[in-house]
Amino acid sequence: MRRLTLALDAMGGDFGPDVTVPAALQALISYPQLELLLVGYPAAIKNFLVKTDSILHKRLTVIPAESVIPSEAKPSQAILASRGTSMRVALELIKVGRAQACVSAGNTGALMGLAKLVLKPLDGISRPALMVILPHHNQGKTVLLDLGANVKCNATMLVQFAVMGAVIAKLIIGVHRPRVALLNIGAEDTKGLGNINQAAAILRNISSINYIGYLEANELLTGKTDVMVCEGFVGNVTLKTMEGIIRVFLSLLKSSEYSVKINTNLVYQFNQLNPDQYNGAYLVGLCGTVIKSHGAANQRAFTTAIEQAVQVVEQQVPKKIAARLAEWGITKE
Amino acid sequence: MRRLTLALDAMGGDFGPDVTVPAALQALISYPQLELLLVGYPAAIKNFLVKTDSILHKRLTVIPAESVIPSEAKPSQAILASRGTSMRVALELIKVGRAQACVSAGNTGALMGLAKLVLKPLDGISRPALMVILPHHNQGKTVLLDLGANVKCNATMLVQFAVMGAVIAKLIIGVHRPRVALLNIGAEDTKGLGNINQAAAILRNISSINYIGYLEANELLTGKTDVMVCEGFVGNVTLKTMEGIIRVFLSLLKSSEYSVKINTNLVYQFNQLNPDQYNGAYLVGLCGTVIKSHGAANQRAFTTAIEQAVQVVEQQVPKKIAARLAEWGITKE
Repeated sequence: MRRLTLALDAMGGDFGPDVTVPAALQALISYPQLELLLVGYPAAIKNFLVKTDSILHKRLTVIPAESVIPSEAKPSQAILASRGTSMRVALELIKVGRAQACVSAGNTGALMGLAKLVLKPLDGISRPALMVILPHHNQGKTVLLDLGANVKCNATMLVQFAVMGAVIAKLIIGVHRPRVALLNIGAEDTKGLGNINQAAAILRNISSINYIGYLEANELLTGKTDVMVCEGFVGNVTLKTMEGIIRVFLSLLKSSEYSVKINTNLVYQFNQLNPDQYNGAYLVGLCGTVIKSHGAANQRAFTTAIEQAVQVVEQQVPKKIAARLAEWGITKE
Repeated sequence: MRRLTLALDAMGGDFGPDVTVPAALQALISYPQLELLLVGYPAAIKNFLVKTDSILHKRLTVIPAESVIPSEAKPSQAILASRGTSMRVALELIKVGRAQACVSAGNTGALMGLAKLVLKPLDGISRPALMVILPHHNQGKTVLLDLGANVKCNATMLVQFAVMGAVIAKLIIGVHRPRVALLNIGAEDTKGLGNINQAAAILRNISSINYIGYLEANELLTGKTDVMVCEGFVGNVTLKTMEGIIRVFLSLLKSSEYSVKINTNLVYQFNQLNPDQYNGAYLVGLCGTVIKSHGAANQRAFTTAIEQAVQVVEQQVPKKIAARLAEWGITKE
């Protein structure tokens, strides 16, 4: 079994080591091939290790950090003052080859910015993208990207996102020949924006990509596509819209007088679609994968984020993305 | 009481005169000052007038049309072949001064395109915008625009949308000093796209507008703003995302085994947020107002769309938008 090392930003998120350390130990139990580097304040981390199985400790190394990026910090300022923070140290462990991926529940904007700063893009990738895997109506899953790593995107970037999405859908969701769609505001070829129309023209000519055309945002949860590609501004708005409306629905449900049983069932179903809950957005396209856990993640949710990192590393996602790009003749401009 | 004339595209929508004519009669009963021009196939329209109160007929004129734009037609093609269609004839009744507004449940893209073609923009307006009034969490309402009349928007257009939204929020929702926000992907001044940053700079300097800054899409239903402004591509994606997720929720609710009572209550609450239900999107910024009813509108929903047209005309929305633009020094570039 191949050894596999992940760096965890142990201080990130609303609960810090209180959540990240128990989640790390849980992941070590599940994955005997896993080694974890816990980055943060040693005393705070060790506090949560005292009573645990010392056999697990052999696969766990505490890496000291001097400070922590606050969740509410402005990303631009946080990045300027990031030297020695748990997030940056965790990313640097990938850079120097000690870890293959990093998981953090910290400040999203800072994490995206720092990852781009610290890690190199993969050969053939202009810019990394942030993606989530959304559960859809028909029991399946849809990859949505970019979610804001790149506010504006040109056609080449959208095509690269399509490739990255297709690789993820194949390796992580397990779809044999993933359908890829571009998010647009209508089905006609001339609809929408120039970069989308140009990306469509390129995708139609890549026979290895199962490009199915434009889809509108109301098709995101219908299972009509395995990969939905859009520029970062639009992806961010889409995900936030979803988050906002789910919050309203959950509060409507909770404020109604219906029985606990019903609440629990429906809340569970709706939570499946709650961006707070399907934990772990991927920043893909860099040498090394970065997984963003939700800041409010509990132990189970943070373990899920670690598991996603394990999958991405085991499936050698970055390497396979680079191979597909080369194979399909999509190169950095 | 001032006389008020509306043109109805009697043939538009999934049900045509079957819905539009009874809705028209209902509106005539509610508004004694109202006169309606029903545009379509005379025989089809008259079929639904036979058994009705002949006093109402005095305020109702049938205007013949030769053809109908199919709901599923490609807008670009439909517009090319639009001469003599019920939709176009209805819009032309505004142009020649016989009607002050038009209501149609027909093809959205064709309606937007034709309205721009047939009707002139208001003085000071570069481009008309499509808006909806969304119910929000705290019992209030939020104006959202543009929803796709303008795929790309420059800063001036966004500022004009802000003005139009504020006028609508004041006159139609009844908010004294409407809060206006720009939809963005973060709160920092430098976040998002250049056109949004520039629009923000202009809005901050217009003291008559209660500009409150950037809001993210998850704030759309929280009541933090009375007007949310974005470019058409983004607004369309936002509304469609909402529509898609509401469909999923309604189907989850309907497929669950809970009692009819519970279903009915929750379905009602959720339907409040269903874009199919809060009927009537406004195309504002033209000389004359165009109201787009949902294609699947039933009689009650289509009556609601007519009522919205009545409100817009009675409140002299177009005239007041033009006055605000002049007063606040916002002119067409």
